[in-house]
Amino acid sequence: MRWWGWGEDGEAPALPAAARALIADELGAREPAGGPPRVGLAEVRLPAGALGASQRRALVAAVGAEHVLEDHGSRVAHAGGKGYADLVRLRAGDGSRAPDAVVAPGSGTEAASVLAACAAEGVAVVPFGGGTSVVGGVDALRGAHSAVIALDLTRLDRVLDLDRQSLTATVEAGMLGPHLERLLGTAGLTLGHFPQSFQYSSVGGWIATRSAGQASAGYGRIENLVEALRFEAPAGALATRAVPASAAGPPLRELLVGSEGTLGVVTAATLRVRVAPGAHRYAGWLFGSFEEGREALRSFAQADAAPDLARLSDAEETRLSLALSATGGRVERVVRRYLRARAGGAPCLAITGIEGGLDEVARRRSALAEAMRSAGAVGLGEGAGRAWLRERFAAPYLRDELLDRGVLVETFETAAGWEALDGLYHAVRDALTGALPGRGTVTCHVSHVYRSGASLYFTVLAPVQAGSELERWAALKRAALDAILASGGTITHHHAVGRDHSPWLAEEIGELGVEVLRAAKQRLDPAAIMNPGKLLPA
Amino acid sequence: MRWWGWGEDGEAPALPAAARALIADELGAREPAGGPPRVGLAEVRLPAGALGASQRRALVAAVGAEHVLEDHGSRVAHAGGKGYADLVRLRAGDGSRAPDAVVAPGSGTEAASVLAACAAEGVAVVPFGGGTSVVGGVDALRGAHSAVIALDLTRLDRVLDLDRQSLTATVEAGMLGPHLERLLGTAGLTLGHFPQSFQYSSVGGWIATRSAGQASAGYGRIENLVEALRFEAPAGALATRAVPASAAGPPLRELLVGSEGTLGVVTAATLRVRVAPGAHRYAGWLFGSFEEGREALRSFAQADAAPDLARLSDAEETRLSLALSATGGRVERVVRRYLRARAGGAPCLAITGIEGGLDEVARRRSALAEAMRSAGAVGLGEGAGRAWLRERFAAPYLRDELLDRGVLVETFETAAGWEALDGLYHAVRDALTGALPGRGTVTCHVSHVYRSGASLYFTVLAPVQAGSELERWAALKRAALDAILASGGTITHHHAVGRDHSPWLAEEIGELGVEVLRAAKQRLDPAAIMNPGKLLPA
Repeated sequence: MRWWGWGEDGEAPALPAAARALIADELGAREPAGGPPRVGLAEVRLPAGALGASQRRALVAAVGAEHVLEDHGSRVAHAGGKGYADLVRLRAGDGSRAPDAVVAPGSGTEAASVLAACAAEGVAVVPFGGGTSVVGGVDALRGAHSAVIALDLTRLDRVLDLDRQSLTATVEAGMLGPHLERLLGTAGLTLGHFPQSFQYSSVGGWIATRSAGQASAGYGRIENLVEALRFEAPAGALATRAVPASAAGPPLRELLVGSEGTLGVVTAATLRVRVAPGAHRYAGWLFGSFEEGREALRSFAQADAAPDLARLSDAEETRLSLALSATGGRVERVVRRYLRARAGGAPCLAITGIEGGLDEVARRRSALAEAMRSAGAVGLGEGAGRAWLRERFAAPYLRDELLDRGVLVETFETAAGWEALDGLYHAVRDALTGALPGRGTVTCHVSHVYRSGASLYFTVLAPVQAGSELERWAALKRAALDAILASGGTITHHHAVGRDHSPWLAEEIGELGVEVLRAAKQRLDPAAIMNPGKLLPA
Repeated sequence: MRWWGWGEDGEAPALPAAARALIADELGAREPAGGPPRVGLAEVRLPAGALGASQRRALVAAVGAEHVLEDHGSRVAHAGGKGYADLVRLRAGDGSRAPDAVVAPGSGTEAASVLAACAAEGVAVVPFGGGTSVVGGVDALRGAHSAVIALDLTRLDRVLDLDRQSLTATVEAGMLGPHLERLLGTAGLTLGHFPQSFQYSSVGGWIATRSAGQASAGYGRIENLVEALRFEAPAGALATRAVPASAAGPPLRELLVGSEGTLGVVTAATLRVRVAPGAHRYAGWLFGSFEEGREALRSFAQADAAPDLARLSDAEETRLSLALSATGGRVERVVRRYLRARAGGAPCLAITGIEGGLDEVARRRSALAEAMRSAGAVGLGEGAGRAWLRERFAAPYLRDELLDRGVLVETFETAAGWEALDGLYHAVRDALTGALPGRGTVTCHVSHVYRSGASLYFTVLAPVQAGSELERWAALKRAALDAILASGGTITHHHAVGRDHSPWLAEEIGELGVEVLRAAKQRLDPAAIMNPGKLLPA
């Protein structure tokens, strides 16, 4: 993974000419002539390594010297996640959030030994899977301690059990998405969990952050896919029982899923998998308005007829998507036809995905087409669906291109009941628009639908002056979060709380709610070494 | 509700002659000539009321004098739940688990005032909704306090909001099942949550115990149906946000659902409701063996083709069900035909239920019929399904008749992954059979299916000598729970932990897991007044 951006060299798709033109025309942003404005790896300024000799000895005893890394490259590679602010800082050479060392246990037992060593030696621990947090979830903060390590879990990547009767797979938590799906695929299975970060995020990271895959309407959110987990806390190990359901008190599993490394670390999980679908049908549609599309998605969800994936862009996002799309030409012709037929308006693009057995997909596809037409949608065909599938993991690469051009790009996501959704949409959109530094645009899509409500995902693009990025970013964050809470939304639907949303948590769950989480933390992590400064407000 | 048994006078169905004969022949148990062996209400021995003057004043200040009841009848009516052991004790005149007073708040605010008064005055509080616990969940234990009240929530029975867009209903927690479904029904809606206790259990009770309705495969368990809840703890109020999903840390909602009154009390809940189904199709089937039926249910669940309700009895339960069934004659003819065709064996009865729109039900019904036939099942028709529907809430009435005849009747329920289910079935069955006091029988059914596993529900019937009932019952409980834990099951799938399962909780969730729950309790209920002796082991 590139230390200054997303993905790997050579994997980034080239920015189409249409996109380059649009960025230049609408945002007034061009790639600087002298190449991307970012420092070289060697120029990233790191804090002096603070690991003491006794601390180092204890860590080496836990995992072996070759897995306690204090070199410049390892520290930079673990100096935060992949949010806009992380990348702005690193590109400018600010490595202040780097850990003093990167420690990589090779087993759950070794992970427990690392925690014991850190508790004894006063070292803060930041669990680090794929490192793709966009909410400051892996910033290496020391808290009250003298040093901090990144606990790199990527060596924990084994399959421990595959139960074909129960359709569960027990895997170690450091396994990354593609590795997991490859392994399951050889057995004809899938987890079906594809967040946008899929290519670089880990099973443990998904669990720690309550991740939602793009097709969560069909496959469920990660909390629905965890049958059981193994967890190491400084106070000891927890292993929840692998049962499909239980009434044996409040489930510890639910307390650990979403705990963001603040209580301990997930070391393995038993996941509910499925037989891999024999067929996929992804398609594009146009609605006459965002409201019309939302009403359609609501009616599908409430009739148990939602596609496995359903996304609906507002008019602005639709306009930009179509302009940026590689298949733009053909789709644009359909859009023009549509606009003539509907006498103007600003159409809204929807993408639907249906997966499953051949017969089932055929049946659901024809039922969906009928329901879509009844709801006023015009079909764009499966080409638009396939284009979306091809590009489903591409947005973070595009962000790098935008950063190269001095464009701020950040996303804000929330969810609310259907009744509250329209008010939430307008409130957040207005708040973000009002906080734009000048030129720029705010777009939104619905990406996850439920019977009782849906998520909203906002994207802001705005050119910013070099040096003012973080201040502008913080102002947008404040505007969005305040508007979300005032309008009945949750501060995060699937990005988690991390450091960035932590100041708003008490407003969401109440001071007493925060205190209850603190009580659990106090019991599991009495020395408060686990992921300081995340989730729980200071 | 009868203080000595289930339901109301005049509502109990008469025991068919076939059932009377079977009880006499197989268990050697007859109704005593002198009428049922139970004391009169006035003869129930209660502990001397222990409420002090200052405690009483504080409670009266909170809810008004007319809602602080210390009379004999009120105390007896709240002297425990409706488990076998509760009824044995009460029928013998043992009211030792009665509260000192019954206090009935009229609002969430009054409930909070009661908790504040009790915390200040050192009074233990037992939240009491419908009072149908079968695990000792509402025994009025004092803990370390000088007095104990039952906090009767049945005055909290208002609808607070009905959101037709989001399909959610916000209701107070003391509302009983039939009241809720009547109210929703007038709006064309349903919650679809029908536990066996439905007629007398409350929304708050379902939530406090992680209840599962009979059709949970279609409608979801109660934890899937709670969008948000309001909760009063001695340390203050908690209100979770009404959103369909969130990644804002571990959900407090999941910590409160299943907390069994030990952290505080649910005062209101926003429930995810549905449009009431236009059609129901319930049907009976016979499989050649329990294994064959289980494999069929597994394949349906894993293909997302499970009926909304699926039950499968083992051979012994099938034999007894058919003998006891009011429709016995017709069904027995089918069974005989079946046995001739399959050349013997011990057939196993399955009941399936499909609910929804007319077209959907027709489609699913024909798909299920085809899948059932492929799996080896023989259809018994919809008469058997309708008979099950008619009798779905009758078992507790039958239990009263059995108690009248000196028959011990208790149920044990668990769940496990499909892979573990066969071993679990035999282990628990063998353990219970080994612990039978002499004559008697052990039956089992699968009642809730999931993709990864299913529940098992065991029933024990055994004649016991008067005076030895509780000792025999405790021996069976120990045998079942030990076997469950040794075989990978959970100690409870939907009955909850209460007092009866509490000694086994640490084996299920670990000592550290128990400590985490204790830490949450310490924060929410620092004086430990809430439901002493339940859920958390001593």
